[in-house]
Amino acid sequence: MQTPGHHLSAMRTAAPLVHNITNFVAMNVQANVLLAVGASPAMVHAREEVAEFAGLAQALTVNIGTADAAWAAGMEEAAGVMDRAGRPWVFDPVGVGATRFRQDLSARLLELRPTVVRGNASEILALAGLGGAARGVDAGDAVAEAEEAARLLARRTGGVVAVSGPVDFVTDGARALRVANGHPMMAKITVMGCSLNGVIAAFCVGQPVLEATAAALSAYGLAGELAGAQAAGPGSFVPAFLDALHALTPGALDAGARIEAVA
Amino acid sequence: MQTPGHHLSAMRTAAPLVHNITNFVAMNVQANVLLAVGASPAMVHAREEVAEFAGLAQALTVNIGTADAAWAAGMEEAAGVMDRAGRPWVFDPVGVGATRFRQDLSARLLELRPTVVRGNASEILALAGLGGAARGVDAGDAVAEAEEAARLLARRTGGVVAVSGPVDFVTDGARALRVANGHPMMAKITVMGCSLNGVIAAFCVGQPVLEATAAALSAYGLAGELAGAQAAGPGSFVPAFLDALHALTPGALDAGARIEAVA
Amino acid sequence: MQTPGHHLSAMRTAAPLVHNITNFVAMNVQANVLLAVGASPAMVHAREEVAEFAGLAQALTVNIGTADAAWAAGMEEAAGVMDRAGRPWVFDPVGVGATRFRQDLSARLLELRPTVVRGNASEILALAGLGGAARGVDAGDAVAEAEEAARLLARRTGGVVAVSGPVDFVTDGARALRVANGHPMMAKITVMGCSLNGVIAAFCVGQPVLEATAAALSAYGLAGELAGAQAAGPGSFVPAFLDALHALTPGALDAGARIEAVA
Repeated sequence: MQTPGHHLSAMRTAAPLVHNITNFVAMNVQANVLLAVGASPAMVHAREEVAEFAGLAQALTVNIGTADAAWAAGMEEAAGVMDRAGRPWVFDPVGVGATRFRQDLSARLLELRPTVVRGNASEILALAGLGGAARGVDAGDAVAEAEEAARLLARRTGGVVAVSGPVDFVTDGARALRVANGHPMMAKITVMGCSLNGVIAAFCVGQPVLEATAAALSAYGLAGELAGAQAAGPGSFVPAFLDALHALTPGALDAGARIEAVA
Repeated sequence: MQTPGHHLSAMRTAAPLVHNITNFVAMNVQANVLLAVGASPAMVHAREEVAEFAGLAQALTVNIGTADAAWAAGMEEAAGVMDRAGRPWVFDPVGVGATRFRQDLSARLLELRPTVVRGNASEILALAGLGGAARGVDAGDAVAEAEEAARLLARRTGGVVAVSGPVDFVTDGARALRVANGHPMMAKITVMGCSLNGVIAAFCVGQPVLEATAAALSAYGLAGELAGAQAAGPGSFVPAFLDALHALTPGALDAGARIEAVA
Repeated sequence: MQTPGHHLSAMRTAAPLVHNITNFVAMNVQANVLLAVGASPAMVHAREEVAEFAGLAQALTVNIGTADAAWAAGMEEAAGVMDRAGRPWVFDPVGVGATRFRQDLSARLLELRPTVVRGNASEILALAGLGGAARGVDAGDAVAEAEEAARLLARRTGGVVAVSGPVDFVTDGARALRVANGHPMMAKITVMGCSLNGVIAAFCVGQPVLEATAAALSAYGLAGELAGAQAAGPGSFVPAFLDALHALTPGALDAGARIEAVA
């Protein structure tokens, strides 16, 4: 099994073009995160071109945070392109428990077999049909409560499910890993989770999905630790985080990663 | 009467979910401002879910900065939900004097009795039907020229009207307060006004509207003063501002607030 | 011929209202760049008001990065207003080589005679119908390969074409200038090119287009050099860049500008 630093290095060599259909709040930060980590982002959503553009990309992220019916159709088209081409795509069911529209759209997207589903505990519970105490778009449940939901969901999609939190849980339905990197300040800044989706997608290009996802979570969390150590608050955290992500070396990632297999 | 610090403290204890239908330029900063000050933001606008989501939120902001007809309909639905439920909503008539579309939409939104209307002097004058020298979205008039318009407008809506500027003017039509906190650099950064709307909405949850609005303006302006004292320009101002908003204590707010009643 | 510093100074005196129809990723940064440099930005795209708003503006930028059919119609209307009024407008054909929709929309916009077309080498080659190795929205070609395409395109539109890269190339079809300011870090941050469009538009108001465009490129690149000298990475670069743009004096620009005529 390769180290997280190896996965980072392989991703940077590939420098994949990652197509993102994400929410309006996240677009700028998500693009900067992808550039900082070493990938090439594009934000494209219009029905007029979204499927054609997906055909050019190595990976895709879909985030329903500010979707409407027109965007939803584009999401399904693009995800379908990736599914048929066998290329990775990451699905983030933002606030899925909050409205009927999000539930229905999420159910349709799940049918397109996302390579990775990433959400907070409440979102993963809601997506698995097991409730979830979502309040708006923030998590109301602990990661541990969503582990079984994550396993169920992974078996249903045939992909990987990642539950974000203080300690992340990542599973393919059979095996599971825990990733303990991160910093509490990350919960005080918007779109930190959304922007992570792009990093996961980039890491998954040509790499084993469970390990690549854990490596992406670990790299992201470690950059957060480095930023948190020098930031005076959530405002100065963001520039420091992008700097840390850009400066992160494979060696530093291997030294700082806290990934462990779940028995 | 409670101090501004008390209002800040009560808002943080409530940590209200604030639903924002705001413009594309403001979305990210407005969400981060709400997180930094201690509230929980969500940015939701699609017709397919906006009314359902408003039903979950403790407060709402509506900003017409980049609205179109589809968004306008969602704004009216969400504001109607808040009006009927007796929950606070804040209306920002960005650039209302610039186009007929903004004038018509603003007139319809005023019918839904916004708890607080916040704008610059030109916007408040235009909204009250008293002219206003708007040039694009920046103010062309002084706050003092809009005081009478603000009082008229407050009597018409039955709510509070806040005129932003070097010294803000806040009135419920009868009483009025002036808030002298702030920093000139705030006029050199986009969406500082838009992002303030969320803070006002959060402060108004379960608190008396006139005093809560003044406290929100004062907290925001004081964070601006602290940021302005250490920033090298408008770029470094924004991270410093978010840090200051996050670090602001009720005691510091009570010490630094410059609110006075208008005789 | 006036110096670049003179053009900066004249732009700040005019402080033009620049109307931007830009992509979602760029909106916030592009507005802040315009404020920092000394102009007045507005981001307006809705069909319901875009032509009316264009009538109020001194200059316009059009960027197809996240356009769809509805936005495209608004772009054509607003560009038509500027064309008929003889006011400057800047066209950025983001990723034009990537999809048929972008090619068709770009062809229609070219008919409206943009005052300045600005893109990377791949975009200028694609727009001129000469190929271009675009991969997503990043350049795959060197500036030198696009010089002939830029000249051809400028003769076709009757305006100026600017090719962005390590050394920019600017031409009106007959004369040409090279601008060597800039910093490698600028390629690691999203929407740096998009935000430049607003600065070019502001400089072109009432000033000779070829020289004003070169002055804008130089001022922007010089601010990048100053920011790059103090930033620890792409995250801290952005605040430092806005600070530098805001602090840039005409004298410093004249001292640091690296513009030369092409023989």
